[in-house]
Amino acid sequence: MKIALLGLGTVGMGVVEVINENKESIEKRSGQAIDIKYILDIRDFEGDPISSLIIKDFDTIENDDEIAIVVEAMGGVEPAYTYAKRSLLKGKSFVTSNKELVALHGAELLEIARKNKVNFLFEASVGGGIPIIRPLNQSLTADEIYEITGILNGTTNFILTKMKEDGSAFEDVLKEAQTLGYAEKNPEADVEGYDSCRKIAILSSLAFGEHVNYQDIPTEGITKITKEDITYAEGMGYVIKLLATCQKQDGSIFARVSPMLISKLHPLAMVNDVFNGILVKGNVIGEVMFYGRGAGKLPTASAVVADIVDAAKHIGTNIIVFWNSEKVNLKDKKQVKTKYFVRLEKGVDAVQNLVKEIFGSVEEVQSLSQEYAFITDLDTEEQFANKINRLPELKVVSKIRIEK
Amino acid sequence: MKIALLGLGTVGMGVVEVINENKESIEKRSGQAIDIKYILDIRDFEGDPISSLIIKDFDTIENDDEIAIVVEAMGGVEPAYTYAKRSLLKGKSFVTSNKELVALHGAELLEIARKNKVNFLFEASVGGGIPIIRPLNQSLTADEIYEITGILNGTTNFILTKMKEDGSAFEDVLKEAQTLGYAEKNPEADVEGYDSCRKIAILSSLAFGEHVNYQDIPTEGITKITKEDITYAEGMGYVIKLLATCQKQDGSIFARVSPMLISKLHPLAMVNDVFNGILVKGNVIGEVMFYGRGAGKLPTASAVVADIVDAAKHIGTNIIVFWNSEKVNLKDKKQVKTKYFVRLEKGVDAVQNLVKEIFGSVEEVQSLSQEYAFITDLDTEEQFANKINRLPELKVVSKIRIEK
Repeated sequence: MKIALLGLGTVGMGVVEVINENKESIEKRSGQAIDIKYILDIRDFEGDPISSLIIKDFDTIENDDEIAIVVEAMGGVEPAYTYAKRSLLKGKSFVTSNKELVALHGAELLEIARKNKVNFLFEASVGGGIPIIRPLNQSLTADEIYEITGILNGTTNFILTKMKEDGSAFEDVLKEAQTLGYAEKNPEADVEGYDSCRKIAILSSLAFGEHVNYQDIPTEGITKITKEDITYAEGMGYVIKLLATCQKQDGSIFARVSPMLISKLHPLAMVNDVFNGILVKGNVIGEVMFYGRGAGKLPTASAVVADIVDAAKHIGTNIIVFWNSEKVNLKDKKQVKTKYFVRLEKGVDAVQNLVKEIFGSVEEVQSLSQEYAFITDLDTEEQFANKINRLPELKVVSKIRIEK
Repeated sequence: MKIALLGLGTVGMGVVEVINENKESIEKRSGQAIDIKYILDIRDFEGDPISSLIIKDFDTIENDDEIAIVVEAMGGVEPAYTYAKRSLLKGKSFVTSNKELVALHGAELLEIARKNKVNFLFEASVGGGIPIIRPLNQSLTADEIYEITGILNGTTNFILTKMKEDGSAFEDVLKEAQTLGYAEKNPEADVEGYDSCRKIAILSSLAFGEHVNYQDIPTEGITKITKEDITYAEGMGYVIKLLATCQKQDGSIFARVSPMLISKLHPLAMVNDVFNGILVKGNVIGEVMFYGRGAGKLPTASAVVADIVDAAKHIGTNIIVFWNSEKVNLKDKKQVKTKYFVRLEKGVDAVQNLVKEIFGSVEEVQSLSQEYAFITDLDTEEQFANKINRLPELKVVSKIRIEK
């Protein structure tokens, strides 16, 4: 079995390493040897034994009938999308770790794969090495999935964990994460929740069989979370996590990325550092959770190579995956019900009556310093926003959602 | 697609329920409708609409070419084993939740399935609804798995969790578990670790591709764990869990079931109540954990029906699973290295010097009451046993292994 690899960055290097290192067991499991015939990269890697495989032109791959599987580890939508399409149309399976590509064009590429009796596989696009795509497609098939909630981004989880453990401020921990290589120089995609947003779009599309457009998902990052918020959370028996969720209720789908307060006893509460955790709820199975390293060269390569093995075992057969290409209308975010934890700058005497008047009965929280802190009842987002707006003269220090 | 169900007990009922309730989505995922044509049971279920499907004779199933999949939910080795063999030889796939059957005859039945181009599937035999068998076979294929450690029994985990939360004694919590239906009237299989033992035998056979005989696995239950042990554990930042583990080191395989002290920060430490957790370590992926309900009618049925769907999608193709039928020689349990937590009846003054003389440097533990408690260095089990035997006049209150 000959394959071609597109892109020899971190993940691509990992794929080469894993295919060489675990050659024997991979051969056993796929029923045949897997050899990399071409690597498409703009660099030459002179002096590296791998340099003999480097090519510059995708046409060579496209037109080589010996290539049964194309593995993409370039990232970015283009030219990955074009190469994916051309590979599938030529009867080659396509394996990718590219969440951007899958979130945007997954439905279409799955459909092209189906028509051409090949496979479009993307286990590594969500949760790094954690097996989640294949279990959703092949293991939880007896269930109607009604919710997936996960910690899908290792960088932000590392930051929140460190802030809690060391009592440090967001900015300081971000710098540390950058030094350790856990965060990019431009950390926006992680800390603003964009990475989690694309991943939950993929998971919800798969779970519900409808194309959830990531641009429709309300997304909030962790940049506003302070060490004081975390201290409050601890006092209440909560931890703060950046959760990505999708839920189906009464036939309508809702998805969101936002920092949430969750109970210390919640299964996701123990997912710390750069680890990811994905909680899946089904009407038969109840709750299952998948936990592991959500990123990194080798964990990601593990998922990519597992997809290659799967593609090799399914030459000539399409692994059925459902995902309508029509964009689904998500539930209006204003109508979603949530509880909020709120901190107001002024102390209890100044605001207790006003808060009671506006919010009705609230659960008061032992306040730090001179603030007034409380937990609201369940309200729609719209009602909550309206109520908060009726506190014009008061500075709202924080408002953070609470997981029911 | 017509299937036959053997046994209409709790799991069998669950299977019927799930197939009816999620009919539509199951049909979508298997590419065809799944209908139960026969149910083999000694009872008649008169008045129940299902009674028309009840038959008494396996021959009818064996000789009906329309039946492509036989689903076994009877439990026990016989007649399940005979029916499994006869089904597979007749070209029918066989799905089972029966850990006894799989642990004892898995290798042989997988081989018969392979030769007959059908499948022998047993996702529900370990971890109830938690997808673990399929991920091991199909998702972690890029990895060399070198360790699986899990909480594989919900009953004992419920008991240990309750003992910790309520400070109750083993006997009292066991009674409570029996009242709640979480423990059998005769709880031996659970509390003595036999259930976990069969499950880890299956997982290790799959992970290492060698037949691990469950009778060779040293197995210790939780009946000796006291509430005082749990108090000590808490003081040291540990929890006590019944862990089943298999590990491969330098080409040799070791497996064991025993109560262990694990750090509160260990991923398995948060697996509480009747939940199960299975931690898998591979040379590429690092650590992944699978978490969910390890037993119960619906979770187990979820796994059984997922196997039915998988079998339906693979008519005519054998899903490659490796498992040599020759029994593997496990590493001598005496040579395995472990740290122990030890409690001696007499106080520090009486024994400190003797312990030092025998064990060398130990880590003393803040003792409750008049005891002397300490943690040993890493020793082989044999060395540890020899040392303990040199304390003849002292009563050893507890000795519990510590997870490195």
